[in-house]
Amino acid sequence: MELSHRKVTKKLRFTDRNGNALKEREISIKQINHAFLFGCGAFDFIPYVMKGEDKQLTDSWLEIFNYATLPFYWGEYEPEEGKPNREKLMKTAQYLKEQGVKVKGHPLCWHTVCADWLMKYDTQTILKKQLARIEREVGGFKGVIDIWDVINEVVIMPIFDKYDNAVTRICKELGRVGLIREVFARAHECNPDAVLLLNDFNTTTNYEILIDGCLNAGVPISAIGIQSHQHQGYWGREKLEEVLERFSHFGLPIHFTENTLISGEIMPAYIEDLNDWVVDEWPTTPEGEERQEKEIEEMYRILFSHPLVEAITTWDFRDGAWLKAPSGFIRQDRSRKPSFEMLKKLVKQEWWTDQVVQTDENGFAEVVAFKGDYRISCGNEKAELSLTDDTEQTVIME
Amino acid sequence: MELSHRKVTKKLRFTDRNGNALKEREISIKQINHAFLFGCGAFDFIPYVMKGEDKQLTDSWLEIFNYATLPFYWGEYEPEEGKPNREKLMKTAQYLKEQGVKVKGHPLCWHTVCADWLMKYDTQTILKKQLARIEREVGGFKGVIDIWDVINEVVIMPIFDKYDNAVTRICKELGRVGLIREVFARAHECNPDAVLLLNDFNTTTNYEILIDGCLNAGVPISAIGIQSHQHQGYWGREKLEEVLERFSHFGLPIHFTENTLISGEIMPAYIEDLNDWVVDEWPTTPEGEERQEKEIEEMYRILFSHPLVEAITTWDFRDGAWLKAPSGFIRQDRSRKPSFEMLKKLVKQEWWTDQVVQTDENGFAEVVAFKGDYRISCGNEKAELSLTDDTEQTVIME
Repeated sequence: MELSHRKVTKKLRFTDRNGNALKEREISIKQINHAFLFGCGAFDFIPYVMKGEDKQLTDSWLEIFNYATLPFYWGEYEPEEGKPNREKLMKTAQYLKEQGVKVKGHPLCWHTVCADWLMKYDTQTILKKQLARIEREVGGFKGVIDIWDVINEVVIMPIFDKYDNAVTRICKELGRVGLIREVFARAHECNPDAVLLLNDFNTTTNYEILIDGCLNAGVPISAIGIQSHQHQGYWGREKLEEVLERFSHFGLPIHFTENTLISGEIMPAYIEDLNDWVVDEWPTTPEGEERQEKEIEEMYRILFSHPLVEAITTWDFRDGAWLKAPSGFIRQDRSRKPSFEMLKKLVKQEWWTDQVVQTDENGFAEVVAFKGDYRISCGNEKAELSLTDDTEQTVIME
Repeated sequence: MELSHRKVTKKLRFTDRNGNALKEREISIKQINHAFLFGCGAFDFIPYVMKGEDKQLTDSWLEIFNYATLPFYWGEYEPEEGKPNREKLMKTAQYLKEQGVKVKGHPLCWHTVCADWLMKYDTQTILKKQLARIEREVGGFKGVIDIWDVINEVVIMPIFDKYDNAVTRICKELGRVGLIREVFARAHECNPDAVLLLNDFNTTTNYEILIDGCLNAGVPISAIGIQSHQHQGYWGREKLEEVLERFSHFGLPIHFTENTLISGEIMPAYIEDLNDWVVDEWPTTPEGEERQEKEIEEMYRILFSHPLVEAITTWDFRDGAWLKAPSGFIRQDRSRKPSFEMLKKLVKQEWWTDQVVQTDENGFAEVVAFKGDYRISCGNEKAELSLTDDTEQTVIME
């Protein structure tokens, strides 16, 4: 696996606070964060931050991940018009930020878990309220949340017919690209530096053509979001590489936004909408856990080795969340599955830099290291820095 | 069937050349052409115009149709670089124009029947030559051909893999909407009044999303082209109405550009690319002709009653053309099928106006008539005019 795109190879010059080179010294270079976004659903942080619940769980989460998805489903975020649940989301996002975790808000516009109270308005008013909602969240959380799934599952949005909802109505009226353009324009206006994603579970030509149309219409998409809920079985290397190949044509960063690989029985293939699979329980099994570990490892290795992939987010951290599936790294009893240990080893050992280099007589040392944030030390002298490219750099230790 | 959108209801005032009202007179109002485009493939006019072949065939054609598709397949139009077959196309188009027939050129950009000599060039050069080709044809035929299938079958274009070809290469590079934008821009620039079509056999969500993207990217599409080759069986009312409903959302005129309903055995459903069905002969049968007549009648009635449909083109006028199919109105022996007589009756009787009206004491008469061109007469006094809307009009007879 070729990983040079994940690393810097650069000359560093180390000096003391007065600019004197640290000659022929041993310098410790310890990674403290990844530039790559290793993400996971972080809904469980809300009860922890608000009520102190289940710290063991959230602390386990923090052992691996540096990128959190928090829920902004309109129907849950603002169940009654004008009374959004802002505080708990803001506090949780701030807590995560303090732990060095980047936060993504998911999603700003979606036809599912939509606010029912919107349906009493006419289409123009719904659109106005949708855009005002985007302004409120993107503007209001700026600096704390700067990554957004702006709009979710647009391929199906205007033809979604399981139930009436306000967002399908506006999508029918404006068309897919028309609605995408409006919501992205508003989000971009409210936070021009934000990473703005289009996100879909549809990985067919439909989604390719949609992205193509959006880019030609000038929609400021920062990254392509691809869902990969694999309750019905692992895609496998071939499909994964084929999807990567097709969505690489745009040259945009790719985020795997919602990954699921389960450690129990596979959902039957005839189920079209995963939500239609309703079970009382869905146990994790030893064979399932072994399979899950292997599949997650293969998948993460393939994605990490692809230069355009910048994020992989696993949807459920623990079993029994969405669909009651055994979809987590952690069992219902909070014990760790093999997949947890495997992924932690990949993220914090194999793809992690912790080394000592020797400076030359001018204070220089060449460093090869995974892109990310570093703590540098030499005796009592310390520095922190980000290593993101190959340009030569001077490090002043204090 | 509601057909008011196909008719004018207007007050006409009839005068002599000196402006004196023709009071209480009988006025004959005879339609000579339709505003609606009743089209058919007109490739057979080329041997007639160039070599006088088969006048019986082309004269039969002219009994029904007012809209002709002529072939501009690049590989046939310009088999050797720099030596286009301009003359025969120009002469044929001019002949058709003299018969009151509008001509469409088909197509300017397509991955099939593409010029092989293009493949020796790099992608940028191919694109340059593609755009120069559009400039040459659209500019060069302006005034004779003002309707163009600008680009054909883009949904499949970049993933078409049956054989390498120059157009798939540029479509891969620019993306679907990117290429559409380039070719439409050039065509529009060379003839701003031309009717410019996007044309596809794919009627799924893919094509909807493609159109949506194009319109949001500002591509000047005049009409949506929908192919309907039904060698594998008639779509039926339900599918036809469903397709019309979905493609009506854009509010653009719709052209059924390539319609086929056969009068022989149906092609098996497992064939994916119609071109893969290779047979020695494909006979027309009496039962097949009866079925064909019924299906064509139902289909034309549904399309003519839809306000956004402005053109229906049957692909083959006579049997044995594309795929050797019994797809024509005329058998191989040049005799007429029931479908010919039926369609002629629809187009030239049921949907045709030929009436006498009586003017009042001020020379006024109210006229309800199918939109189109008319020859008016009153004794020896005559006039020609187009009836296209409901505004009051004065007709000066000379």
